[in-house]
Amino acid sequence: MPLRSCYLFEGLSGSQIERIIAVARERNFEKGQWLFNEEQEAAHLYLVKAGAVELVIKVEDTIEIPIAIIRPDNGCLGVSALIEPHRYTLSARCLDDSTLLAISKTRLEDLMSADSDMRCIIMTNLATKLLNRLKETRQEVKIHFMNLVRSVTF
Amino acid sequence: MPLRSCYLFEGLSGSQIERIIAVARERNFEKGQWLFNEEQEAAHLYLVKAGAVELVIKVEDTIEIPIAIIRPDNGCLGVSALIEPHRYTLSARCLDDSTLLAISKTRLEDLMSADSDMRCIIMTNLATKLLNRLKETRQEVKIHFMNLVRSVTF
Repeated sequence: MPLRSCYLFEGLSGSQIERIIAVARERNFEKGQWLFNEEQEAAHLYLVKAGAVELVIKVEDTIEIPIAIIRPDNGCLGVSALIEPHRYTLSARCLDDSTLLAISKTRLEDLMSADSDMRCIIMTNLATKLLNRLKETRQEVKIHFMNLVRSVTF
Repeated sequence: MPLRSCYLFEGLSGSQIERIIAVARERNFEKGQWLFNEEQEAAHLYLVKAGAVELVIKVEDTIEIPIAIIRPDNGCLGVSALIEPHRYTLSARCLDDSTLLAISKTRLEDLMSADSDMRCIIMTNLATKLLNRLKETRQEVKIHFMNLVRSVTF
């Protein structure tokens, strides 16, 4: 069950998970198809049931910086659906033919409004993940900076 | 009142703010003094009442990458105190003689355990801020990457 593999839902009860499953819709996408683009309205959170989705930053029309690949066992994509102003911060494209679970922002918001414990757990999980990602991104900047310093110094 | 100026506490009621103020302790630091270092246990969240604190990544003993300057009107530092594994992800040093409000991780955790609405609001505010910071950091990487591409191409 992909919901259990997503860090956002760790610590939720069985009945809370069931309520989220009830609003999730299975959707099929083809290899190469874009799920969403940066700045587009974040209407859905996605979990990968089969296949793989690549998250990228589009630098120019022909250049992309790869950020992450999401597979069935490692998380979800489109967390901007949970956070105002609800606009995707990256672009996402299927690396293979993929089956995703799409959870509507509005439906999930309704569930969290009715269950503040669910909102608390999801938001704490999200903040934890984002702080880790920020730390990783800074480490990459640090390594890049050190390499730059070394290339200038030696 | 510095608590009102911190994004973490936006949306809290007057009585929730009062409970947090009651556990905050005023502490004075001298210009140049380190508040904390990366990887150290995050025992306190800090708000700046007077002065200024600089957040940096230490690259080597003599090299630092500046990340942000926190002043009385623009936020707080040490949010790792709110997130497991409770280790600071940056280092912080006073730019001037500064008066800070130190909020103990343990005391704040006690308040949030007793008031899940408070936890929900704080965690949602934190996740929102972290997603924005991550987006900003990625934009900087993107600009850096474009400059690099241009310097190679032209």
